Amino acid sequence: MDLTWLALAVGVLAMLVVAILAWSILREPVGPRQMEKVAGFIEEGAKAFIKRQYTTIGIFAALSLIPLAIFFRDVRVAIAFVFGAALSLLAAYIGLRVAVKAGVRTANASRASTTKPFTLAFRGGAVMGLSVVGLSLLGVSLLFWFYRDPKLIVGFGFGASLAALFAQLGGGIFTKGADIGADLVGKIELRIPEDDLRNPAVIADQVGDNVGDCAGRGSDLFESISDDYITAMLLGALVLVPLGVVSEINAFMFPLMLGASGIVATIVGVFIIRGWSKIKPIMSFNIGLLITAIVCVLGAFFSVMVLLNDVRVFYAVVSGLVASLAVGLAVQYYIGIDSRPVKKIAESSERGAAINIITGLSYAFQSPLMPLLAILAAILFSYYITNGSLYGIVAANIGTDLAIGIIMSSDAFGPISDNAVGITQMSGSRNGETLEELDAMGNTTKAYTKAFATASGTVSTIVIFATYGKEVGLDSVSLGLVNPVIIVGLLLGAALPFLFSSLAIGATAKTAYQMVDEVRRQFKENPNILEGKAKPDYARCVDIGTKNALKQMIGPGLLAIASPVAVGFILGKYALGAMLLGGLATSALLSPSFTFGGGIWDNAKKYIERKFWMKGTPTHMAAVTGDTVGDPLKDVAGPSLNIFMKLTNMTALLIAPILLLL
Amino acid sequence: MDLTWLALAVGVLAMLVVAILAWSILREPVGPRQMEKVAGFIEEGAKAFIKRQYTTIGIFAALSLIPLAIFFRDVRVAIAFVFGAALSLLAAYIGLRVAVKAGVRTANASRASTTKPFTLAFRGGAVMGLSVVGLSLLGVSLLFWFYRDPKLIVGFGFGASLAALFAQLGGGIFTKGADIGADLVGKIELRIPEDDLRNPAVIADQVGDNVGDCAGRGSDLFESISDDYITAMLLGALVLVPLGVVSEINAFMFPLMLGASGIVATIVGVFIIRGWSKIKPIMSFNIGLLITAIVCVLGAFFSVMVLLNDVRVFYAVVSGLVASLAVGLAVQYYIGIDSRPVKKIAESSERGAAINIITGLSYAFQSPLMPLLAILAAILFSYYITNGSLYGIVAANIGTDLAIGIIMSSDAFGPISDNAVGITQMSGSRNGETLEELDAMGNTTKAYTKAFATASGTVSTIVIFATYGKEVGLDSVSLGLVNPVIIVGLLLGAALPFLFSSLAIGATAKTAYQMVDEVRRQFKENPNILEGKAKPDYARCVDIGTKNALKQMIGPGLLAIASPVAVGFILGKYALGAMLLGGLATSALLSPSFTFGGGIWDNAKKYIERKFWMKGTPTHMAAVTGDTVGDPLKDVAGPSLNIFMKLTNMTALLIAPILLLL
Repeated sequence: MDLTWLALAVGVLAMLVVAILAWSILREPVGPRQMEKVAGFIEEGAKAFIKRQYTTIGIFAALSLIPLAIFFRDVRVAIAFVFGAALSLLAAYIGLRVAVKAGVRTANASRASTTKPFTLAFRGGAVMGLSVVGLSLLGVSLLFWFYRDPKLIVGFGFGASLAALFAQLGGGIFTKGADIGADLVGKIELRIPEDDLRNPAVIADQVGDNVGDCAGRGSDLFESISDDYITAMLLGALVLVPLGVVSEINAFMFPLMLGASGIVATIVGVFIIRGWSKIKPIMSFNIGLLITAIVCVLGAFFSVMVLLNDVRVFYAVVSGLVASLAVGLAVQYYIGIDSRPVKKIAESSERGAAINIITGLSYAFQSPLMPLLAILAAILFSYYITNGSLYGIVAANIGTDLAIGIIMSSDAFGPISDNAVGITQMSGSRNGETLEELDAMGNTTKAYTKAFATASGTVSTIVIFATYGKEVGLDSVSLGLVNPVIIVGLLLGAALPFLFSSLAIGATAKTAYQMVDEVRRQFKENPNILEGKAKPDYARCVDIGTKNALKQMIGPGLLAIASPVAVGFILGKYALGAMLLGGLATSALLSPSFTFGGGIWDNAKKYIERKFWMKGTPTHMAAVTGDTVGDPLKDVAGPSLNIFMKLTNMTALLIAPILLLL
Repeated sequence: MDLTWLALAVGVLAMLVVAILAWSILREPVGPRQMEKVAGFIEEGAKAFIKRQYTTIGIFAALSLIPLAIFFRDVRVAIAFVFGAALSLLAAYIGLRVAVKAGVRTANASRASTTKPFTLAFRGGAVMGLSVVGLSLLGVSLLFWFYRDPKLIVGFGFGASLAALFAQLGGGIFTKGADIGADLVGKIELRIPEDDLRNPAVIADQVGDNVGDCAGRGSDLFESISDDYITAMLLGALVLVPLGVVSEINAFMFPLMLGASGIVATIVGVFIIRGWSKIKPIMSFNIGLLITAIVCVLGAFFSVMVLLNDVRVFYAVVSGLVASLAVGLAVQYYIGIDSRPVKKIAESSERGAAINIITGLSYAFQSPLMPLLAILAAILFSYYITNGSLYGIVAANIGTDLAIGIIMSSDAFGPISDNAVGITQMSGSRNGETLEELDAMGNTTKAYTKAFATASGTVSTIVIFATYGKEVGLDSVSLGLVNPVIIVGLLLGAALPFLFSSLAIGATAKTAYQMVDEVRRQFKENPNILEGKAKPDYARCVDIGTKNALKQMIGPGLLAIASPVAVGFILGKYALGAMLLGGLATSALLSPSFTFGGGIWDNAKKYIERKFWMKGTPTHMAAVTGDTVGDPLKDVAGPSLNIFMKLTNMTALLIAPILLLL
């Protein structure tokens, strides 16, 4: 049965809730003059960055239209592409604007209440969470409404991927360039506190929290969920329909209805999670997450039974959901503030920065194993439970998406709390326990979201790859693994994420480098700044970050799009398939290594600061060095690799019809 | 025609030359009393380590015999296994013993001559180089003489791999634990020079140079070349013989004759390379390398034409040789003392340790691309030139081995020069320019050998994998890449090198950690040590390194053997094939990232020291931190991964006959 109207209605409902949440935040008071002033700086910087970043992405998207038009000669593909990129950016934009406003209001609320700051910060985050899932479902459903053919919607996923890559890369380079620059001169050289208005890079740092963590991750998950709808529709038609038990329209509706269940569940969760006087914020969040998961499971059960009438698919969906939530356990084990790795690294800092970093690298390289095993178990389970059907994996893949709305909300909550802490500090007040606690919780939820995004992205990539494989006949030809073309393609593909990481890390280093020089210059040329008698030139730091981020995001972005096209046309569609697998293999390992490693270093530093109040000691300096090394890994290379692996596969899927003609 | 006698004769010739070289070194004077004393400490430490390490490996090998006996019920496989492990250890032992003796004699010679030190140091290295290629050819030929069936010789390669893994891991953990421990307390905390007899870990550091660089790399290359003989014989029988143009015995002889040509060429090269008064050592080495390569090519041409009568195979061999030499260009580009990356990192050190490390990571992750492209080009070329025959790749693979003898000689030359510098310094003399130059050259040749070993090891792994694939029918079944079992196997395989690296790096960190504590303890408990009035307890540091190294090498070693067995028996032979490919994909990238990255950090530190004499400044300290971080990467994880990837594949090949019965 055609339920596109229902999907559209749920998408609209999500955006209505977004409007209500935004209104409920904006009507809160901004607080004293000094807070408003600081928040004004941040808002201005964020706006300036977003304006220039979106212009650059727009130009890039417009240029991409030319090859799209030449190859496809179908204006509908091009429209889908533009629509995907635009909705992805719009979701991130809505989330970002409200997040910036929520930050200062959370800071103000913390002066009088212990429960309201959490409610405000979480609802601010929920605006991002619901915008992402709402606009994604709306976009895909609307295109299906008009096109009636998922093949034409692939462009939507491609557009969303392209926008996401640039948003994450640009935002990441900006935020970590500013963060490192601010820390290296402020904390290490001059030993002034974090979030000190005397530091010229401090505003850029706060802006970065929003454009990197918030907007970047938003577009990442927008892409993940959109790609998953599209591949599930495509593979439903390719795998389920030929078996004759499911009608085509039901196969098309199934992923959209699962998505709609996820949104309804998220809305329920968002209103349950709030500040309670007797319950800690993290408990409130866990309860909300649990209830969301239960509602999701109920919705998934009805969707499966009504549309596909096969309970095994339901088990597959649940296995995906469970695996994605289990990733949280790995995060707790490795990154939790009292975890063994965090303590070990804190301890190793007593032997200097080098031992801190070596020990951290050791944990970083082992951390991908646990989450990967969870995913692989879900894949094998869902494959075998459906009697060896690829569709089992498709169902598990959508299962990993069900909690995206609520998890994205908790992610965007992170930078809001972080900003609230910064704004309080910079406006001369002291942070109470409430804000400190929210900030710490935000660090954990941010780490979880990144790990979740990788896990979910890995399954997505496998499914996009399988869709590509089905389309070009990788599974039907007798193409053994021993074929040198396959091995060469695989190794080439494996090399790409390394090169991509190198570019992303190098770009951040370069930006940080210039930021260090600029901050040093300002302090040197005007000694009044350090004494607090003169206002530093914040805008210049924002400008350096922006220019570098936008310039440096082009190279890696091109690599992601050009490599599948080049390999596909030069070495052929099978070598391209192998390249995708090779890229998946290294991305799926490097990305969590980076995000987990960075998270451990970050929390080891915090552990030393909180437990021992050792700020300024050599041990603390060693930990700060480790944290700084982890920054570009966990917030630039790691999250961007997620998008990289999906985008290379989406590009391959997009050009598959052309490769078939060769 | 059966030329086994010729292969045996050339093997014996190599060992005769080894004896002559050893004799020519040992008759040189040891020098003044103080030098002899210092050299005595080193020799004692090395002997103590080797004795305990070999005992441990022996126990492990003996335990491995039990499953071997149960599974194969053929005593010949077990004999081959023991023989392979024993010859690998013997080659490393001969090389190591002579290297230690060559070090002090080089130091002494440098007091009177500018040319003799190079001749002595290089010939000392050549003992290792020729022992490796000589004993490998002798071992394989002897087993073929008795068994007449290469399938039974697989055990030889497996034994060599197992011994190599432990030798490299144990040696690496020891050397870097000692090196880092000595540097962190000596250079960074107390600011005393390197190679200072007051430092309790200084002897362990010198011992480490020998057991890590020298013995470890020797067994690595022994494994590479042995595996390549065996797989070439197996694939010759599987691929060439069925075509009906080549007799089985000729296919068996071909790899052995190529190896014999390589040995003859190496002997020529070894006697050409020596100290000349008008030619710089590096030029002399380059000339020798060139002449060796020319003799190799001539030998390869005759071997191909006489035995296979197909000039295309000759082209394939040459493409492998060229690719393996081209890797040297990448090393020059990245690690050369005046290279752009080295200068960039030196410059970035001015912004602190964190920026130094981030920039280094950025270079590390991009460095594998160039050498990988050289290898992949050789693979595609040799595949297509032989009209799509797998044997083309086999030929290219042996091509990458032809220069092993001379390159291994240049590698072992490194620690000998390094020791000579240390011994001179510690016996109170000043190092002349001659030794400094040799030391710098040794750093470059060591870096080249590691990169070469990875490149050659990658092609070896591909060929072992292809042999496994042929044996279990990976190429004949219609097993598409879209199969979830394949994808799961691939991702599992991709995760293993990350886990393995984590264990190797963590083990080094742990050892370094304890070394730091011990050195600090000695200085604290007896202040006379720092004043040079009391002798530190060197033996205790050697002991800590030894204990840790031997304990910590077990875990990663077991991982390499247990994982293919577990996946093969649980998920089946196809999943195992995919696992091997996944492991290849990440090892082939991680390993060069580690060795190149570490090399760049190392030389950036040297660049700062030599060009600016900035020892002790914050910039120099930042560079030392970077160098220390690179140590476990470039000398433990990187080289061990080479062996890891070959060993997992050899294990799979070994159990292939059993998996076929399931």
